Amino acid sequence: MFKVETIPDNLRVRGFRAVGVASGIKKGANLGKKDLALIVSDIPARAAGVFTRNKVKAAPVQIDIERIMKGVSRGVIVNSGNANACTGRRGYNDALRMTALAEKSLGFKRGELLVSSTGVIGVPMPMDKMRARVPELASGLSYKGLPDAALAMMTTDAFPKTAIQKARIGGVTVTIVGIAKGAGMICPDMATMLAYFMTDANIKGRALKAALKGAADSSFNSIIVDNDMSTNDTALIFANGLSGGGVIREGSPDFNAFSRLLNKVSLKLAHMIVKDGEGATRFIEIDVRGAGDRQQARTAARTVASSFLVKTAFFGGDPNWGRIMAALGYSGVKMKEAKVSISFNGVEVVKAGVDTGKEKAAARGIKTRDVAVKIDLGAGTGSSRVWTTDLSYDYVRINSAYRT
Amino acid sequence: MFKVETIPDNLRVRGFRAVGVASGIKKGANLGKKDLALIVSDIPARAAGVFTRNKVKAAPVQIDIERIMKGVSRGVIVNSGNANACTGRRGYNDALRMTALAEKSLGFKRGELLVSSTGVIGVPMPMDKMRARVPELASGLSYKGLPDAALAMMTTDAFPKTAIQKARIGGVTVTIVGIAKGAGMICPDMATMLAYFMTDANIKGRALKAALKGAADSSFNSIIVDNDMSTNDTALIFANGLSGGGVIREGSPDFNAFSRLLNKVSLKLAHMIVKDGEGATRFIEIDVRGAGDRQQARTAARTVASSFLVKTAFFGGDPNWGRIMAALGYSGVKMKEAKVSISFNGVEVVKAGVDTGKEKAAARGIKTRDVAVKIDLGAGTGSSRVWTTDLSYDYVRINSAYRT
Repeated sequence: MFKVETIPDNLRVRGFRAVGVASGIKKGANLGKKDLALIVSDIPARAAGVFTRNKVKAAPVQIDIERIMKGVSRGVIVNSGNANACTGRRGYNDALRMTALAEKSLGFKRGELLVSSTGVIGVPMPMDKMRARVPELASGLSYKGLPDAALAMMTTDAFPKTAIQKARIGGVTVTIVGIAKGAGMICPDMATMLAYFMTDANIKGRALKAALKGAADSSFNSIIVDNDMSTNDTALIFANGLSGGGVIREGSPDFNAFSRLLNKVSLKLAHMIVKDGEGATRFIEIDVRGAGDRQQARTAARTVASSFLVKTAFFGGDPNWGRIMAALGYSGVKMKEAKVSISFNGVEVVKAGVDTGKEKAAARGIKTRDVAVKIDLGAGTGSSRVWTTDLSYDYVRINSAYRT
Repeated sequence: MFKVETIPDNLRVRGFRAVGVASGIKKGANLGKKDLALIVSDIPARAAGVFTRNKVKAAPVQIDIERIMKGVSRGVIVNSGNANACTGRRGYNDALRMTALAEKSLGFKRGELLVSSTGVIGVPMPMDKMRARVPELASGLSYKGLPDAALAMMTTDAFPKTAIQKARIGGVTVTIVGIAKGAGMICPDMATMLAYFMTDANIKGRALKAALKGAADSSFNSIIVDNDMSTNDTALIFANGLSGGGVIREGSPDFNAFSRLLNKVSLKLAHMIVKDGEGATRFIEIDVRGAGDRQQARTAARTVASSFLVKTAFFGGDPNWGRIMAALGYSGVKMKEAKVSISFNGVEVVKAGVDTGKEKAAARGIKTRDVAVKIDLGAGTGSSRVWTTDLSYDYVRINSAYRT
């Protein structure tokens, strides 16, 4: 585990209030920790979401997928400590009730809030505990409340994940705040990734969705800690337009500027998630170039980053290019062994498919926390980067512990 | 690691001689152990092979793929300690030379022998050591030599893997001997699976290939220790026809009997390979039923067996059905959560997608070495079984050790 990240000062954005409280959903060693959060926009915000592609979707995810179709929302209620997944019809009704209780206390119409849950799977939501805290949630909402919301989303996270970026777009200052929790390699139950972006930008519909999807693909969808895809993964963006700028239209220079800003925030959160992998001792970038196309590069990078043998080698500080070469070979992408080159932190260990004799230098060069692996397939112009961790004793320890 | 398996008495089959010697290819702690083997049929045998689908193929695999096309061979020379993979043109020439030296000493024609290597990747073969032992190999051939050949194939294997089966087929007694080494979860370098079958059955061409492919699919291709596919995986079968029976034709009752016999031998070897996984504390069967078809069942079973989170849960003795459900959900196969049932060693923990409340009983029930997981998807009639191990501290220890 890496150094604990701290929450930036002034983690706030025009027109968004938030709160995080302890409701008693978290149990055991985490009893008494914050586990219930609410994030609300002062005015209806444009909203978009991306969700787990797992066919087993938790109840809150099913509800959000329906509600996000309107493209407008007032915010989201989130709990940690219970995933409300694999809970059948009862779980679905519980998730509906969560939003209804919060909506009522805030004077919102039915369906104006979204909902997320993260924690243990297969256990019914303790609705009594939740219900008892809803008045406190509503009255506690504050423009300074986003850090508390970030804390209340945590499960086995060692630190809260938050980021803020500002830029001049279309003549006004636009702010994007992101908060996240998770994921993988950390969680005695399924490893969920939740992320929320709040912005005062004036952007809606397809443009907002496109910006979110682009940002998620190059950040959350480009980190690999283990290969397990959660039933609850959710990223939502809320844009309330209070920056005062004109509408940001898809394909415009302003859209590109907004996308870059959102990418920065989401990439920062994604890297924090990798660094928070319990048991992680290294932060590894796999940068594949020279692939047939971007998709091939992505497949190659993901296959290398997913290999048990590659990940254990990194834990041992071993620049084991043979394992990488073999992973490239079974990744299914177009490649010829004789054209591949591989380097570790700038030391080229394989050129044209064969050993350069620099493996000892490479081993010395990766005695660092951060390791950059560059792979050139020599087969085209496609490139892609993914980030991952090593596979350590602590990963096994944490994930083999019987759930309590 | 499990109890060491012993070599059956009378591991022999008509017309096959073999030998295993120590040539000094193995280094470090394994110096002086047997590392060079030869298996030879007294008369030209019908031969077939199945090979790694990894695009990065070791030199010996490339040569075998060419030579096996003839459908006839006299045998195979095998070394451990060096994989002769990622060794470029030099490696290819070295593998050719290995066969040429052995062929010459035996008076065979060029191309009559096949070749396999297993061990470290990316290091040139120590040809001098090999060459010096070829005369000893040829003179040491014996009808009792198959156990020595099995020993000489081992890399990090804790015990040799051998099996023998006999049956009356077409009025005569047919014998099949199998020897194997590997794989996965055991190897500081790539985990290679090598398997050789020697039989006196009278079977050739497409029938022999079909029997081998069928046996490999339901045995070696149905075990998952890690997800890494070696550059050297090879299974070869030699049939010299000395049983005296008539030709076994594809699709005939005799062919079915031969296939069943071969399946028994290969399944026995495959289970030994799983049990030899260093760090393995459990032998786990994942039996998927009720899938859309056999391929979907296979994909679902493989996805569950490959999950880091499922495997670490088994190490912890945790009947964590939530992780299995999530793996099924992201496996991509047709499934509905509400139709899934899951049991551990006969205790049903999930029925119609929800918790049966029997998790504690299941946890008590899997305090065994062997764990049988039954999954019914309720979506069709396809079924498939795979075998795997848990993911333990020792797996990480062994695979993170710097290569020596």
